[in-house]
Formats: sequence, structure tokens, C-alpha cells
Amino acid sequence: MPDILVVGSVAYDDVQTPFDRKREVLGGAASYFALAACRYARVHVVAVLGDDFRDEDVEQLRCKDIDVSGLERRAGPSFRWSGRYDYDMSAAETLHTDLGVFADWRPELPEDKRAVPFVFLANIDPEIQLELLDQVRRPRFVAMDSMNYWLEFKRDAVADVMSRADLVCINESEARQFARTFSIIRAAREILELGPRALVVKRGENGSMLFTKEDRSDAHRLFWSPAYPLEKVQDPTGAGDAFAGGLVGYLAADGDIDPMALRRAVVHGTVSASFAVETFSVDGIASATRGAVEERYEAIRSLVAIEARALAGTPPR
Amino acid sequence: MPDILVVGSVAYDDVQTPFDRKREVLGGAASYFALAACRYARVHVVAVLGDDFRDEDVEQLRCKDIDVSGLERRAGPSFRWSGRYDYDMSAAETLHTDLGVFADWRPELPEDKRAVPFVFLANIDPEIQLELLDQVRRPRFVAMDSMNYWLEFKRDAVADVMSRADLVCINESEARQFARTFSIIRAAREILELGPRALVVKRGENGSMLFTKEDRSDAHRLFWSPAYPLEKVQDPTGAGDAFAGGLVGYLAADGDIDPMALRRAVVHGTVSASFAVETFSVDGIASATRGAVEERYEAIRSLVAIEARALAGTPPR
Repeated sequence: MPDILVVGSVAYDDVQTPFDRKREVLGGAASYFALAACRYARVHVVAVLGDDFRDEDVEQLRCKDIDVSGLERRAGPSFRWSGRYDYDMSAAETLHTDLGVFADWRPELPEDKRAVPFVFLANIDPEIQLELLDQVRRPRFVAMDSMNYWLEFKRDAVADVMSRADLVCINESEARQFARTFSIIRAAREILELGPRALVVKRGENGSMLFTKEDRSDAHRLFWSPAYPLEKVQDPTGAGDAFAGGLVGYLAADGDIDPMALRRAVVHGTVSASFAVETFSVDGIASATRGAVEERYEAIRSLVAIEARALAGTPPR
Repeated sequence: MPDILVVGSVAYDDVQTPFDRKREVLGGAASYFALAACRYARVHVVAVLGDDFRDEDVEQLRCKDIDVSGLERRAGPSFRWSGRYDYDMSAAETLHTDLGVFADWRPELPEDKRAVPFVFLANIDPEIQLELLDQVRRPRFVAMDSMNYWLEFKRDAVADVMSRADLVCINESEARQFARTFSIIRAAREILELGPRALVVKRGENGSMLFTKEDRSDAHRLFWSPAYPLEKVQDPTGAGDAFAGGLVGYLAADGDIDPMALRRAVVHGTVSASFAVETFSVDGIASATRGAVEERYEAIRSLVAIEARALAGTPPR
């Protein structure tokens, strides 16, 4: 079974929507990622927990065969985030962030996790991401995420991480912010010029776009994925991390990393995200079955299928 | 060659974007529709012109083999619209609308246009759309558009038109407004329950969604089309009408009206819209060549192509 290393937050969330509110539920980028990726590969989580972190929440990861030996306990409070969504559920308004023990954590990778072939650097301080890249040994594939805060205050460090990653996986607004342009196509070109072989631009309910550099033909350089259509979204928190988990998990299991494999991986990411947003916290992504994943993969293929026949009748003039 | 009837505005537009401004250029829903659809079929335009309308603009339609005998000249000013787009180019802000001779026009269909098999009712007063439906004789396919104003003030009449149409083709915000829900899926269900066999929800740069009722399987009831990715959009005016023109034009030429034909038609609509927004006024859609249309159709197919292989390596757990 392939191995994936994820470094990022394991946290407690307090989430409000117009319909409901959940307090102190398991969250954090690494939790969502791991619970999505564990369906495809053996996931090793590296994160820091406060002394208030509940054993049952660690158990939720462990019982999925996720390696939790890289979870470090420290005296102090766990990372806590509280946010609120409006009716359109498109973007969270952060009400409060308490970094707790995460604030001055500098991860030191355990020896047994330094040679893992697939690495996901979840959204953390880009300087820490760079330190982690110095600690891993020739990984086969590195994917990274970031956020508006780092793009604003540590842009150069983020660019360094991008240049050392194989896949950059960020939101549409972040891509625009990074490249200081409204045009996603121009932003993608600028990011790919830094070095990564692929860029995924996450667009929430509008799906995602995959840009690849190297390919047999121009036609395959861009892939446009829909979101999985859901009538009801309960909580968008963690959608991007579950997306990355499905994507990197699929790639690790598939073996190929060419543009067509990346397309399939993006669809697996889309499927993972769809399960994540159907419930509060990690419950949706944790309980998705193999059959349900495959069903949604096929549903997305149907959703976008277009026949080759351009015109059966009179040819266009 | 199949015949299509379009009834709607032929107008002069004054369009401002952050980059440029064009005054008194040919516009109007029927102009954009006709110039897109004439690539596939013989288009008959029914509209009213003021005595200030320039012959050269009528000639722009006529030289594309569009039947302009249904253009009625009246004393008074032509329909004029002025609007402004912000940097994101997503929605026009209407600065001024002067209906001119369009204000109290009640179209009386010439005898030779009453038996045309494909009909597009562009965005006009829904009561006029209903009168037109009383005048046509058993058309094979009727498509209709509308706008927020009619949805607000003449909702029942719009619902009547929808119930008598085969295809409803409206914007995302209008679908939401009509069904008074944020959920597009719920809005689509409500609109399809009125009677049309299909609904296209236009989503601007996010593409479009096709909902069909009757089909072999559930999987084909929804089709998600991307927009054609453009690095530069000069003027979004008329995109929706060019979309409808490519869509209805393709259907008329193809002969089939099943869900898979509707998917191909939506892609042709998407291609038409992409040409329309690349220039101010109708120049882009008027000058698109057959080769360029086919190239973009194939590019969209590539853009969304997903391989069947779900997992080559370890099966998901």
C-alpha cells in the first residue's frame, strides 16, 4: 500500500451556518485530508495537539488505519477555529482563530516518515513548509496548499514552496491574489512558470480547474471539473482538504502521474469534497463507502460527457 | 435547410467596460441570436426598428442569408440600451433603457413565418411571448428566454410561457429568483414541473447546466458544461443570446432533440457565446468561421474528458 505524509493542522472547529451550529468538533486540514486519503493509501499524519485534545478524536483517525504516531502532544490548548457561513455557503467568515500549541510548533519529521513518496503540505506557514521540504528525502510527488494570509505576508516563501512542489492546489481567489490578476489563465501561467508540473484551482460550487504544463498536446493542458451536484450542503469546512486527500490519495494508489491520471485524481478529489460538505465536521468524509465513491466518480463522468458528433445534419457555414 | 424564427429586440447599444466604450453599435437579443444561428439554419427575424435604424445594420444580417422581411419599420427611435461592466465582467449594470418604437409593439407574425418548426422567443414581455405562441402552428421546438424584470412583475405570464416551451434558457440568478430558492437543483425541478422538456441555466464564466426530464437513465438528466476558456473578454453583451442561437441553430440542423443532442447543442451554444464576448457588438459572432466553431467544440470536449478507469492500483477501501 502506498504511503502519504500529511503535515498540517488537527484542530477543533466551531462552525455556524444559517441552519445549524456545531461546537468543538474535529477539524483541521490534516484531519480532512487524512480521512479522505486513507481510502486509497496509508496516511501518516504529522501535527501537534494540545493537552485538551480528546483521545476519541485521535481514535477516529487511528481506526481508519491512519498512522497517528506523528501526532505530538504538548501542554496548552489545541488549535481552535470558529467560522460562519452565509446562505450561499461559498466562503467562511473567520470569527476567531486560536493557534494554541500550533503557534510556535516547528515540526521535526520522525525518521520513519522522511522517505514517504507522496507528501501533502497543508495550509501552514510557508517557512515551515520549506523546512519540511528540507527534511523529506526525494519524494515522488509533493502537493501544497496555502491561504490568503501567507500570500499577503510571506509571498516569497509561498513562491519558494510552489517552485519545489509538483502540484499547487489553491482557491481561485488565492490564485488571483498571488498573480495579481483577475485572469485565472494568466495566474495559472505565472504559477506554472515557478516550476510545479500542475496547478489545481479550487472554485467551490463551480468545480475546479487543472492546469498542466507537460503534455502530448495543447488540448490536454487544461481540465475543467464540475463540482458534484448536491442539493444540500451542510458545512463547506474542510472541502479543500478533503479534495486534496482524494486527489493525492488517488495518485498514490494509481501509480501514474501524467495529465490524464491527474484528471482522474481531480475527479476523486471532487468526490471526496462532496462527501465532506454533506455533514458538519469529518463525519461525511469518514463514512463514505468505496461503492459511494465509485458511484460519484461515474456520475461526474456522465455529468460532463459530450459526444464527438459535431453536426449530423447540414454542416455549419 | 431548416428554418428558425426569432422574435426579440434589434437595438443600438452603448457599452462601457473598464477598458473601452462603444456607442450606438448593433445589438439586441434577436441580432445576436440570428448571427449565431445563421451558421446552422435559415433564420427569420421578427422585430421592430425605428426610422433612425441604419440600412447598413440591416444589411449585416441580410448578407448572412438571414430573412429580414419580418423587420418592421416604424416612425420613432429604435430601442436603445446602455450598460456598464465592472472588472469581473460578470453582470451588466444597466444605465439606461429607451424602448422607443419597441414600447407598444405587438408583433403580428407574417403568414409565411407561422409554420416555422424552430422558434426562439427572446427576452420580451411574456404576454407578447404568449401572443406569439398563439400565432405559430405546431412548431417542433420552442425555446424561450426572460429576465429579472418579467420574473418580478409578470411571473404568472412567464410561467405560462415556460409551460408551453420545450426549452427554458435563463440565467442562474433568474432561475433562483423564479423558484425563490438558492438551490439550482430545486429551481430546476420546479421549472421542469411546469412542462418544458429541458432547462438550461446560464452561468456566465462558470458555464451552464442542462437539466432534462425525459431520459433513459437518471445519470443523463444533468449536463454540466464549462464556458470556453478565454484569456480576454471584451464585452459580455449578447452572450446569452448568441448561446441560444448556437444551441437552437445546432438542434435545427442536427434533427435529433434527445438529451444527448441537447448536450451537443449546449456546447455549440457555449462556442457561440465565446465568439460573441471576444469583441464589442456582434462582430465576433458574425465573423466566426465554421472551422473555428468546430475547433472550439473539440476543445471543450477535451477540456472535460475523463477516463473511465477509476483506480488502477490498490482498490479504495
